[in-house]
Amino acid sequence: MKKYLLTPGPTELPARVLLAMAHPIIHHRAPEFLPVLEQAREGLKWLFKTKNEVLILASSGTGAMEGAVTNFLSKGDKVITVNAGKFGERWGQICKAYGVEADVINVEWGQSVDPEKIKEALQKNPDVKGVYFQATETSTGVVHPVKEIAKIVHDNSNAIVVVDGITGVGVFDLPMDEWGIDILLTGSQKALMLPPGLAFIGISDRAWKLNETSTLPRFYFNFSKELKNIVKNQTAYTPAISLIIGLGESLKMMKEEGLENVYKRHTLLAEATRKGVQAMGLKLYAPKSPSNSLTAAVAPEGLDSGKIISSLEKDFGIRIANGQDQAKGKIFRVAHMGYYDKSDILFMLASLEIVLNKLGYKVESGIGVGAAEKVFIA
Amino acid sequence: MKKYLLTPGPTELPARVLLAMAHPIIHHRAPEFLPVLEQAREGLKWLFKTKNEVLILASSGTGAMEGAVTNFLSKGDKVITVNAGKFGERWGQICKAYGVEADVINVEWGQSVDPEKIKEALQKNPDVKGVYFQATETSTGVVHPVKEIAKIVHDNSNAIVVVDGITGVGVFDLPMDEWGIDILLTGSQKALMLPPGLAFIGISDRAWKLNETSTLPRFYFNFSKELKNIVKNQTAYTPAISLIIGLGESLKMMKEEGLENVYKRHTLLAEATRKGVQAMGLKLYAPKSPSNSLTAAVAPEGLDSGKIISSLEKDFGIRIANGQDQAKGKIFRVAHMGYYDKSDILFMLASLEIVLNKLGYKVESGIGVGAAEKVFIA
Repeated sequence: MKKYLLTPGPTELPARVLLAMAHPIIHHRAPEFLPVLEQAREGLKWLFKTKNEVLILASSGTGAMEGAVTNFLSKGDKVITVNAGKFGERWGQICKAYGVEADVINVEWGQSVDPEKIKEALQKNPDVKGVYFQATETSTGVVHPVKEIAKIVHDNSNAIVVVDGITGVGVFDLPMDEWGIDILLTGSQKALMLPPGLAFIGISDRAWKLNETSTLPRFYFNFSKELKNIVKNQTAYTPAISLIIGLGESLKMMKEEGLENVYKRHTLLAEATRKGVQAMGLKLYAPKSPSNSLTAAVAPEGLDSGKIISSLEKDFGIRIANGQDQAKGKIFRVAHMGYYDKSDILFMLASLEIVLNKLGYKVESGIGVGAAEKVFIA
Repeated sequence: MKKYLLTPGPTELPARVLLAMAHPIIHHRAPEFLPVLEQAREGLKWLFKTKNEVLILASSGTGAMEGAVTNFLSKGDKVITVNAGKFGERWGQICKAYGVEADVINVEWGQSVDPEKIKEALQKNPDVKGVYFQATETSTGVVHPVKEIAKIVHDNSNAIVVVDGITGVGVFDLPMDEWGIDILLTGSQKALMLPPGLAFIGISDRAWKLNETSTLPRFYFNFSKELKNIVKNQTAYTPAISLIIGLGESLKMMKEEGLENVYKRHTLLAEATRKGVQAMGLKLYAPKSPSNSLTAAVAPEGLDSGKIISSLEKDFGIRIANGQDQAKGKIFRVAHMGYYDKSDILFMLASLEIVLNKLGYKVESGIGVGAAEKVFIA
């Protein structure tokens, strides 16, 4: 059976990227690697919309999240974190591990954070060093109002704005410099159409200033050391060479398509997916602020979402994701970030209709796909 | 021009590994990934010769080194580290970054550590928690007496024996359980014939015991969390999936060859390389304890080793490595760990003879290759 991966990371890899990575290995200090790293640096600056360097780490996104705490804070520092799901919770866990005091804004799963809550928290704690949140909370499919939050933070404090853009960067616009995002990070296995194993982190001048006084311990994720190296087209430690070669190809594909077109495509696919599942009578898990990265849909009353997921896998070779923690069994999550196009959404929705009917939830055949078609026609 | 990589990491990739990694991406929670991770686990236990789990990290080897400090020690703990080169120095730097007091045994570059020095250091500091050293110090091409050191440590203390086997594992025997190595770590881009981006770390029961009382901060490199996951064929954070698929193939290749044959091949290639460069009148940088992983040779008096390296690259497409730090310009390093065989050594030595002659250091044509041939004939 043909296999399709529509999970919110890892995502499908273009054959062009797979082939690029199958290139014989190059030494990371060899002259042939210099243009590879230089192009990657330029491409990442273009993608992050920043004049500053974007560091390239050999780790998953969580490593970059840890570094976003340890390179800018000191023991006993206060920060604000937004916990609207499993990944927002992680900010608090990292802070705890390093003795940073996090004032956690808890948000109901499926909701986005109200920027006013951040304003209140800033007024309560005027000495916070940073505000840590997600662009998209991958566990719930919600998008947070990054631009508004950044403005509120800068209008009301000296704190840095730290955005986990793991499922945001490359899906929708997150112009670092223009919006005043001080730290923006992402991983390779989402919109960047690569296997997992690389993380990227952009850092503003304001954040670099904070780095100078930060005393938390760090070694592998030492950003000032990485900066000193990356300007010379090097990395502090051996880089994940084959993945960086793949990165060159995926950035090239994004440039060929054009960044605005990449964002438009993601908007269109997300809108079609949402309209499609809603036409089947399913509710969105994040109805007010759904992300264009993935769609989280609530399973019909009395039907375990795990059954929908395993039937899609078994009958159609389509892998989507279950909910995590408290949402497990209640929702399913379909990704449309990265190497996806209209056809993926159409066959996924049609397959979903068949599976739902088979599982006893009656759906008029074609109703979801039809709704998606209308989005594409418009 | 055909290109050849004979650097001490990254090393050449077999086409089988490149092809394996070009497999369409699999989700790390998908049933198809379970046997991949399970085989990798089994293969790593086989390679490390341990009954315990070997953790798989998405990072370069340095990440595993950091974790080997942060997961077992607490602030103010004392350890002994062996600094016989750039990588030995790194143990001290990591300890310093985390407030661990390192009694550093400084060894002249090119020399291996005298186990008696470790005994003395243990007697001076009976409360040390660990002894940290390299199996092979990659910057000098020296091999340390791992078995003897492990015995001395266990006979004289309760400290754990921590071995950076980044350029040792898969080159020569380092049977963890038999020798009492408590922590053994390596990276993917050496004898394991993979691109950089994965690190592996085996941990003894004694070390796990120490982990229970360790209080240094950690998050991404959290080994107890990784252990809880790996026994369920999972990883704490998104694994570097494509590299792990490649790992399956490289372990398969090592099993097909047989571990003892792998070690024999490395011994033979190393011996031929040493005899070859010595026949050209060059001195080994680590003459008393040369590693079978790489050969470091001293450039002829008055000839910058960088010139030899750049000529080999320019005229023959062969990339070898310069010395690092104090050895830069003085030595060159040729690797023979991983996917190498007799032919690689023969053409490298012949090319080296041509290059040396061209640079004004007169070598009888064929004298080095001839010496290597004799090793292979024997």
